[in-house]
Amino acid sequence: MLGNFSYHNPTKLYFGDEALNYLNEELPKYGKTVQLIYGGGSIKKNGLYDEIVAILKDNGKTVVEDAGVMPNPTVEKLREGVRIARENKVDLLLAVGGGSCCDYAKAVSVSVHCDEDPWDKYYIRFEEPECEIVPVGCVLTMAGTGSEMNGGAVITNHEQKLKIGHVFGDEVMPKFSILNPKYTMSLPKRQMVAGVYDIFNHICEQYFSGGDDNTSDYIAEALMKSVIHSSLIAVENPEDYEARSNIMWTATWALNTLISRGKTTDWMVHMIGQSVGAYTDATHGMTLAAVSLPYYRMIMPYGLPKFKRFATEVWGVCADGKTDEQVAKEGLEAMEGWMKQIGVALSISELGATEDMLDGIAEGTIILDGGYKTLTKDEVIQVLKESM
Amino acid sequence: MLGNFSYHNPTKLYFGDEALNYLNEELPKYGKTVQLIYGGGSIKKNGLYDEIVAILKDNGKTVVEDAGVMPNPTVEKLREGVRIARENKVDLLLAVGGGSCCDYAKAVSVSVHCDEDPWDKYYIRFEEPECEIVPVGCVLTMAGTGSEMNGGAVITNHEQKLKIGHVFGDEVMPKFSILNPKYTMSLPKRQMVAGVYDIFNHICEQYFSGGDDNTSDYIAEALMKSVIHSSLIAVENPEDYEARSNIMWTATWALNTLISRGKTTDWMVHMIGQSVGAYTDATHGMTLAAVSLPYYRMIMPYGLPKFKRFATEVWGVCADGKTDEQVAKEGLEAMEGWMKQIGVALSISELGATEDMLDGIAEGTIILDGGYKTLTKDEVIQVLKESM
Repeated sequence: MLGNFSYHNPTKLYFGDEALNYLNEELPKYGKTVQLIYGGGSIKKNGLYDEIVAILKDNGKTVVEDAGVMPNPTVEKLREGVRIARENKVDLLLAVGGGSCCDYAKAVSVSVHCDEDPWDKYYIRFEEPECEIVPVGCVLTMAGTGSEMNGGAVITNHEQKLKIGHVFGDEVMPKFSILNPKYTMSLPKRQMVAGVYDIFNHICEQYFSGGDDNTSDYIAEALMKSVIHSSLIAVENPEDYEARSNIMWTATWALNTLISRGKTTDWMVHMIGQSVGAYTDATHGMTLAAVSLPYYRMIMPYGLPKFKRFATEVWGVCADGKTDEQVAKEGLEAMEGWMKQIGVALSISELGATEDMLDGIAEGTIILDGGYKTLTKDEVIQVLKESM
Repeated sequence: MLGNFSYHNPTKLYFGDEALNYLNEELPKYGKTVQLIYGGGSIKKNGLYDEIVAILKDNGKTVVEDAGVMPNPTVEKLREGVRIARENKVDLLLAVGGGSCCDYAKAVSVSVHCDEDPWDKYYIRFEEPECEIVPVGCVLTMAGTGSEMNGGAVITNHEQKLKIGHVFGDEVMPKFSILNPKYTMSLPKRQMVAGVYDIFNHICEQYFSGGDDNTSDYIAEALMKSVIHSSLIAVENPEDYEARSNIMWTATWALNTLISRGKTTDWMVHMIGQSVGAYTDATHGMTLAAVSLPYYRMIMPYGLPKFKRFATEVWGVCADGKTDEQVAKEGLEAMEGWMKQIGVALSISELGATEDMLDGIAEGTIILDGGYKTLTKDEVIQVLKESM
């Protein structure tokens, strides 16, 4: 049932192959010094770095470099980014990259004017920012995380073997994001499908809870069908602009708070997957894929009507003459078939997890409720074993 | 295909049966003088007026009354509202009512600090506001128009027999809207189903254009299925909170620019329906219902694949062994069956239109392109004749 909630998403989006032009409209709204955040340098190879620096210079900005954001941004990198921002008194954090760069920029944004250590404050004590927040803008080069239109920021602490996400409020969401589907085309196919599965799983995490006739559930099904449809085109032809643009747009709406309105969510695939990531440093979307089917097969009996609906509405399973359980199982089989077709990881061992890690991964898994079944630690271990 | 577009919707929504409490959070953001906009006084009967005035007083506000907003707000009323706002130097326009009150508040908001006549500037010359815009807040009591989260404002000029909508930009959208599904329960059933059809038609207007695999089309289908599902519950039991809440939430997303991203739209059902409204003063949603089926049957051959998809995806029509045209026709028949079940108008004559009006209605119909077929004036007359 839709209960009481608020919805506010002030991020301005510019979408399409001409979207970067709108950076010229946004930049005058902010001060002179821009911290340019990016990853391993692929934007230097494909020319995007030069294009963006030229626009920044045209707009009279001073560019402060902050390169080397890794796929799973670490707490050490976060502290470095905060130092760069403080030393240069930056006015805007401009992230150019995928969800890691956007997440990192948001984590920096709430830490620059905060006296405490960001890891302890935001990731251990889960406190909210009380300080001034440096504005964030994004130029997205990978579709998946939805970070371009939400307040989420996942940070990894290798020393503590923890990968934790903090979902900040609307004041931390990017002020603007530039979404050009062409930028996503230079990614290796493995990264593309990891992003696709990340999108799909974001939707699943919000869909598998509660009753069955909530508007959010209908929208969730629509987004699932759209990303399934487009992913099958994109794996055959990664240059298909239409498919890539629909994947990119779906990613944004899969995780910008819309489809969680009126829903409870436990995010358990993410909780388990993130802990796998903390041990293996594997690509986020792949860790989710590798643990999903064992997890959903485990909780299916507790949310059977929804798993049945998932089968018929998302996968077109015919329910005639079958038990609800049979229908639900066929839905998960259809999902498995699609996962194989696009080529995501189906086991955590192929991501580098070993038997001796499982206890630690389970220990690092934050167990939340809100789904059909609150897992015990033993059940987390069982999911992990079945994911090997 | 998703092309180039921007998306920005800054309206903050508070949803649920406790949503009015959040008025206390919003009011401190605005100055002292609040223009309280409402309709015929039903909010005085059900106690909402007293509740809101008490909250305004608690927050130290001076209340300026602006009552009597009619179902189709007139240009004369608009001029009166502008005068009230100017004389009292109001800081916030607070609309309590349905789409008419919200639309009216937005039309006032762009006219208070504008030297020209608002009808000529915004509705004849379709210019954009250059002046300061007075902020608008809404407390919604009827679900349908989506006005609570968009920039639209329809105004009627009876003298000129014109009912015209101007869709303003994001700076004119309400700053906040309070959506309590319980407030919609006191409406007569006829008003409720007119709202339901308005929602459904908003979705159709954006759905019936372009190609078939756009994320916006999938979301449109989801919203249609949700409103069909909940409307059938609500006509049997108007007190069903869950159904009314899903209808209310769907209404907001049916017309807040989301599902038109990447789509062209001609809004022809609205264009014809609004002209019928200018002649008959009939309820907006009923005018749309009365002209829809003849219009869609006329354009069906030009957008056959989409009408086929509409039949199978929204209405569950089985396509096996049928021609595309048969499938598409069955979809419109299913839609007609649902319209009869919920009890919307199926002819403009039952809304007071007479043969002698048809030429004038066609003359007052603004013909736009962007759909599957740009209508000629003769075709508008044909639609109107088939709607009699």
